[in-house]
Amino acid sequence: MKLLLISIICCFTLQVSAQTDAENLKKIYTNSLTNGMSYEWLDYLSNQIGGRLSGSLNAEKAVAYTKEEFEKLGLDKVWLQPVMVPRWIRGAPEFAYIETSPGMTTSVNICALGGSVATPANGIKAKLIEVKSYKDLEALGTEKIKGKIVFINSPMQPDLINTFEAYGGCSSERYAGAAEAAKFGAVGTIVRSLNLRLDDYPHTGSMSYGDLPNNKRIPSAAISTNDAELLSGMLALNDNINFSFTQNCKQLEDVQSYNVIGEITGSEFPNEIIVVGGHLDSWDLGDGSHDDGAGVVQSMDVLRLLKESGIKPKRTIRAVLFMNEENGLRGGKKYAEVAKSKKENHVFALESDSGGFTPRGFSFQCSDAMLNKIQSWQPLFEPYLIHYFEAGYSGADIGPLKNDDIVLAGLRPDSQRYFDHHHAANDTFEHVNKRELELGAASMTSLIYLMDKYGTATISNAERLKD
Amino acid sequence: MKLLLISIICCFTLQVSAQTDAENLKKIYTNSLTNGMSYEWLDYLSNQIGGRLSGSLNAEKAVAYTKEEFEKLGLDKVWLQPVMVPRWIRGAPEFAYIETSPGMTTSVNICALGGSVATPANGIKAKLIEVKSYKDLEALGTEKIKGKIVFINSPMQPDLINTFEAYGGCSSERYAGAAEAAKFGAVGTIVRSLNLRLDDYPHTGSMSYGDLPNNKRIPSAAISTNDAELLSGMLALNDNINFSFTQNCKQLEDVQSYNVIGEITGSEFPNEIIVVGGHLDSWDLGDGSHDDGAGVVQSMDVLRLLKESGIKPKRTIRAVLFMNEENGLRGGKKYAEVAKSKKENHVFALESDSGGFTPRGFSFQCSDAMLNKIQSWQPLFEPYLIHYFEAGYSGADIGPLKNDDIVLAGLRPDSQRYFDHHHAANDTFEHVNKRELELGAASMTSLIYLMDKYGTATISNAERLKD
Repeated sequence: MKLLLISIICCFTLQVSAQTDAENLKKIYTNSLTNGMSYEWLDYLSNQIGGRLSGSLNAEKAVAYTKEEFEKLGLDKVWLQPVMVPRWIRGAPEFAYIETSPGMTTSVNICALGGSVATPANGIKAKLIEVKSYKDLEALGTEKIKGKIVFINSPMQPDLINTFEAYGGCSSERYAGAAEAAKFGAVGTIVRSLNLRLDDYPHTGSMSYGDLPNNKRIPSAAISTNDAELLSGMLALNDNINFSFTQNCKQLEDVQSYNVIGEITGSEFPNEIIVVGGHLDSWDLGDGSHDDGAGVVQSMDVLRLLKESGIKPKRTIRAVLFMNEENGLRGGKKYAEVAKSKKENHVFALESDSGGFTPRGFSFQCSDAMLNKIQSWQPLFEPYLIHYFEAGYSGADIGPLKNDDIVLAGLRPDSQRYFDHHHAANDTFEHVNKRELELGAASMTSLIYLMDKYGTATISNAERLKD
Repeated sequence: MKLLLISIICCFTLQVSAQTDAENLKKIYTNSLTNGMSYEWLDYLSNQIGGRLSGSLNAEKAVAYTKEEFEKLGLDKVWLQPVMVPRWIRGAPEFAYIETSPGMTTSVNICALGGSVATPANGIKAKLIEVKSYKDLEALGTEKIKGKIVFINSPMQPDLINTFEAYGGCSSERYAGAAEAAKFGAVGTIVRSLNLRLDDYPHTGSMSYGDLPNNKRIPSAAISTNDAELLSGMLALNDNINFSFTQNCKQLEDVQSYNVIGEITGSEFPNEIIVVGGHLDSWDLGDGSHDDGAGVVQSMDVLRLLKESGIKPKRTIRAVLFMNEENGLRGGKKYAEVAKSKKENHVFALESDSGGFTPRGFSFQCSDAMLNKIQSWQPLFEPYLIHYFEAGYSGADIGPLKNDDIVLAGLRPDSQRYFDHHHAANDTFEHVNKRELELGAASMTSLIYLMDKYGTATISNAERLKD
């Protein structure tokens, strides 16, 4: 009888709360689509500020702007968290050409990879050797590589549905290619851009020399996919052609920068902290609208949409705009370090760093029990065409918060167009659709709302009632 | 014991066939993403031919081109199905301005609606009356409307997730607004473009005068959303301003055109016909890439992808490229009429006419039992992030085929950006992403493959085995 009563109470409670939840999600989505701020904020970040490479004046402008916008929202707390960041500058634009015979040249589109050293002032000119992967260098050996420019031509795999998997399949070519080629005496590396489309934009991104001494470091650049095809075609006809490139980039001293943080303090469990974030820095070629202006403005809008929708969170909700995800992850590491030193209890963190495209769902790093609990909320998201709730990667900036208890999640927008723009000059505002961006912000807010309401514990409601 | 045996056989058969199905879907998607033809065909249709309004030279070029491409595929049959189509021409470009006081004018962006009459050669100039909907005209009455231009300013509802619902909510303003306003003595109508975004492109589309006599017909144009906002703002300050517009469009005599049809004849049940289609005509302002070049090339690629993937259909599969969906639906009606007169047995028809965006699923017009059967295939589509299998609208061109037995379906791509481009000068090739288009073609091919294999009967497998 007692059990029956509990069951009835449970059913009733669940039904009422599902109804309220559906209503609250409706409020959140309607607010986002009718008076969301994401698009207006992104317009400012992209068109009034622009590319925001760590340590640049633009990055500092973005810190000041977003702090000011947080302050306008009437949050409980807004602050800057200091963090030292690396400062790499591109210098004068790069240029490059293929020389088929003396005086016969064809210009190609390249850009220095982030972290690369410069070429000598008047450039490098050398023969080329083309490989599919730096892993093929060992077999070729120093004899065939020494004195040459290594051309790593590794196309992203087109038949993977999730384009991030295709990216994962060749991002190490960009990151580690130069260090590996240098070991065999190469004088430079040219890496095919990580872009599934054939076009003329070179895509930058971080690279590392590992522990290679300074005097062994060789310049490394990305070449556009069209020009990678061109170059490969030319080499198939004549492997005796020259390639020349000039780049003027430089690694300077670390400088002071900031994570920007806004907080709604929890009404019942203020010490249980939920983080939502994106990264404020971007590469310098475009204006960083998709990577990751979108995640920044969506995270800001989560706090605003909760307030606008009349939701008072029980737990503390922090929007964290991380600095330096692109070439150092210093912001993410600093945030986790401070959280640990203050013994803060972070229960959930959600990152948006996959572009401002139509949201498809979320991926989670958590226990199976917690994933089951999250999947039970799935019907609430169906009216918004959010279907994907699976185990998977969360995000780089929140990664350092990982421990046995915290639930980590990443927004999963449609990924088909992301690498058309990623780290390239065409990552610009006009390629973000207002509604798609706003649907992302609403989806994030809805997940945060549910996570705040139901917490990250996984004991059943019946057991709770018995306690 | 017999029942157990049947169960075991069933389970085994189902498992083997699920495996084969999964393998075949994988082949189809891989083929589409690695050597699909959709994008190349669309490039030609859009960039070498362009906008294809019924009765235009471009429409005839598109007929010739697609027939030729069908012939290259080595299909069992390729033919043209004659159909008479209306021929409306835009003539010299429209122009319009707001006159706040004599000589003080502001230009605005308009375009004639398809089917509208022209203004007099030197245009119309009149006072304006703004309404939210033509349904408000009755209350205003002839006294307030006579001699004026009716400005119908009905924004699409932004908080509907499916943008086609928002379109449905105001498309009758465009279609019927002029006929209604004419009844109250208006001299013209200006209709807010059916676009969820604020921009400068006017969006055309069909309108009708119903049974209004020729001498009562008034010219009707669409105005861009930015200019609708501007005009409404000006009217709020001063409702005594003039509006002037000039358009030179004309309805000519019907002309001969064609549906283009390619067929793979079924190996077992050639008389059971499956249709997949899109419409070959488009509006004239852009190049009709999304509406409906995408559906045309995807439908063509369904036949090619089946062949490339080594699938020999049991039933007859026809790709039908319908003429004149936009302003008459003559092609769809003719196809159904011929099918009926020949007593052809159409069992399934699928239309793609919602843009070349990332496919999300399909909507179906069929019995509940058939929908259940289709939904049982859903797990096969999950690796491709196709989640939506619901009852709903199929498509305009296949609508005339409807009877009690046929299953009708529509591809449901992501709808967020569709109305940014629909019927406007920015419905152009560069707004179609190659992968998104190819994923759509693969999804359509996969559904056709399953529908061909399992048919549209809904008796259970156990019952079949007993027979």
